[in-house]
Amino acid sequence: MKIGIFGLGTVGQGLVEIIRQKEGDIAIAAVVDRSFARKQQVLKEIPASADRNLILKDPSIDTVVELMGGIDDALYVVRSALEHGKNVVTANKALLAEHGYALFQFAEAQGKFICFEAAVAGAIPIIRNIETIFRNERITRLMGIINGTTNYILTRMRKDGMSYGDVLEAAQKQGLAEADPTLDVGGYDAQQKLALLISLITGKWVEAKNIPVRGITELSSQDVVWAERFHNRIRLVADYCFQNDNHYMHVTPALVNEQNVLYDIEYENNAILFQGEYSGEHLFMGKGAGKFPTAFSVYSDLKHLQSGSARWSYQQGQGYLALGDIADTSSAFYLRLRVKDQPGVLAAIAQILGNNALSIASVHQDHSAVAAGEVDIVIHTHAAKRSRFYKGLGEIQALKNIVLHQIYLPVLT
Amino acid sequence: MKIGIFGLGTVGQGLVEIIRQKEGDIAIAAVVDRSFARKQQVLKEIPASADRNLILKDPSIDTVVELMGGIDDALYVVRSALEHGKNVVTANKALLAEHGYALFQFAEAQGKFICFEAAVAGAIPIIRNIETIFRNERITRLMGIINGTTNYILTRMRKDGMSYGDVLEAAQKQGLAEADPTLDVGGYDAQQKLALLISLITGKWVEAKNIPVRGITELSSQDVVWAERFHNRIRLVADYCFQNDNHYMHVTPALVNEQNVLYDIEYENNAILFQGEYSGEHLFMGKGAGKFPTAFSVYSDLKHLQSGSARWSYQQGQGYLALGDIADTSSAFYLRLRVKDQPGVLAAIAQILGNNALSIASVHQDHSAVAAGEVDIVIHTHAAKRSRFYKGLGEIQALKNIVLHQIYLPVLT
Repeated sequence: MKIGIFGLGTVGQGLVEIIRQKEGDIAIAAVVDRSFARKQQVLKEIPASADRNLILKDPSIDTVVELMGGIDDALYVVRSALEHGKNVVTANKALLAEHGYALFQFAEAQGKFICFEAAVAGAIPIIRNIETIFRNERITRLMGIINGTTNYILTRMRKDGMSYGDVLEAAQKQGLAEADPTLDVGGYDAQQKLALLISLITGKWVEAKNIPVRGITELSSQDVVWAERFHNRIRLVADYCFQNDNHYMHVTPALVNEQNVLYDIEYENNAILFQGEYSGEHLFMGKGAGKFPTAFSVYSDLKHLQSGSARWSYQQGQGYLALGDIADTSSAFYLRLRVKDQPGVLAAIAQILGNNALSIASVHQDHSAVAAGEVDIVIHTHAAKRSRFYKGLGEIQALKNIVLHQIYLPVLT
Repeated sequence: MKIGIFGLGTVGQGLVEIIRQKEGDIAIAAVVDRSFARKQQVLKEIPASADRNLILKDPSIDTVVELMGGIDDALYVVRSALEHGKNVVTANKALLAEHGYALFQFAEAQGKFICFEAAVAGAIPIIRNIETIFRNERITRLMGIINGTTNYILTRMRKDGMSYGDVLEAAQKQGLAEADPTLDVGGYDAQQKLALLISLITGKWVEAKNIPVRGITELSSQDVVWAERFHNRIRLVADYCFQNDNHYMHVTPALVNEQNVLYDIEYENNAILFQGEYSGEHLFMGKGAGKFPTAFSVYSDLKHLQSGSARWSYQQGQGYLALGDIADTSSAFYLRLRVKDQPGVLAAIAQILGNNALSIASVHQDHSAVAAGEVDIVIHTHAAKRSRFYKGLGEIQALKNIVLHQIYLPVLT
């Protein structure tokens, strides 16, 4: 096997190290990287260039590893590689979420493979497990922590009592968050990964942009503290369920209680919990990111290609998956309202909830850490159809003279 | 694919149901079961007999599923099936632990497969993952809860404050423990499964009987309570590590603290935690037993055989694995001593520990639930070489006039 690597960043360098240490039968024939000249210490004897043709036009290279990131250039490289009869291994979830449908069809037409274990949940072999084992049964539920950056932020907010902004800054300094963190903290990275996972599970393509998404940017330290008080933790969850012949999914911050295994997934770890029709509940936990964990998943894909055990993840002509409206599903909710500290406020709110048949499980009011004349009311509701909760929420929001600010989180079950 | 099933117990019946519900291309050609006559409701149109030849002598049957349990008959059936050119799927860990080395060689010589996903950790696809993904890197550590019965007993002892004997009786009534529970509570079932896992990981055969094993029978409610007091839980752990070019492994009850993910694995769930050289820490959690979870693993193996993606787990001539002496490794320990309540006892014990360079992390003494004139001393030691701890323990044991009873548990890290 002769491979060409596009992009010699952290993961690319990890891959080079693994392949060297294994002393196996994978030869790195060439590397293409914009700043290859500054990376001679890593490259050593490997031919390198900024020119893509060094790899694309070399007929002896049978496999292209795309670790450039970004979309447009990566799309060109992947398409060209397939056109030139090369298999592709990529860690690029953004590329696949946007262009995967066409790319997988094109790969199949060319008789080539696109492998992407490293694109979802780092070192966790979740793609391979879905393709080989869980393809044999219906997955009725999937709940995942599949974005390490946000889980790291939420963990440190809780453990170190830090604000969202301070943790984000610290994470950026440590290279755990990007300079522009929108993709992670806005939930879009998890949205793309969830789209890929559900496409694999259902066999039909899920358009990432159709998955409802909420990020963690509106969360405050108060919510983290309130969660703890009720033995809950906040997690950014990619949530899918199959109910009444509908596929429902969304990405949302949610409360997770201590009975749920996701409660214990801390820092940049990833975990995917799913429910198989026959096999029951499964959890896969592992490193969601990092030089060697991610590079190892790329290496695994190369070994599968080499041993002839790679698979076509999608088959042509299966079409797009129709998504159910998440508002039609039920959930219990946590609702924190910052209100004016005056008589009648709770009555007004409780009436709206009652009018919408939203049953209250508990109410707590607390003056701590709130400005003078203001108070936080925290309400836990029993499970109800989300659409009904959203309607009630809209009516509460309209109480502008007394409700200053609000945040709600579903409670994961 | 035409299969013949030996043994129509719980798992066998689950398999029949799954295959029927899937309406796929797996045909159940025949069932052999001693009491087939009483199982017509499950069998329906499937030909059945107590005579093994119904399956073995039918050349149209390409795959034999062995779910009889036991060793001698199962060995005959598996060997005969291979001789007759049939692939084998089995859930029989005892058979494989005892005769696997010869059986796998024989299967390879016949050009046939023995698949055994269901033999270890029920629904968790651990065999497949080791064969396909983690075969590519060195596993430096494995810690598993791979016996559901003992984990169920330990969980209920803690949660319901019940004694070992009472929980065992309850578990037997519920079908979660055998009438003769020795294989489970003695740790031998976990020992067999650990042997299979490490054989797969290292590529060399591990003789189950060479793995040091301790069961849970000597544990008392007091130890469960003491563990909780220090935020630990007791788990029966199958523990392997690769250190200084040696393979160390044993099965032992151990204290697990709340930072360890095994702490949260409760009731009959199974979990396997392992450390990959490059990919880092992984956890696989799922149902360790049960009708459909186990039957699903059998079904998965059938689908792999059908799609041509089954593998030879062992290659001929790799030989046996040499096991390091677990006494050469280090561990912290929990030690509970029932002693006579008289002056000088603690001094005598502390002196022995000191003489053996065993450093004490904490000492607690408690009168509760102990007979008059007796007292429990609980000592936590810092990590030390096990051989040194065992030597000290022997000396303490020799203090027969003051030390009435003792139990020790390693603390898992």
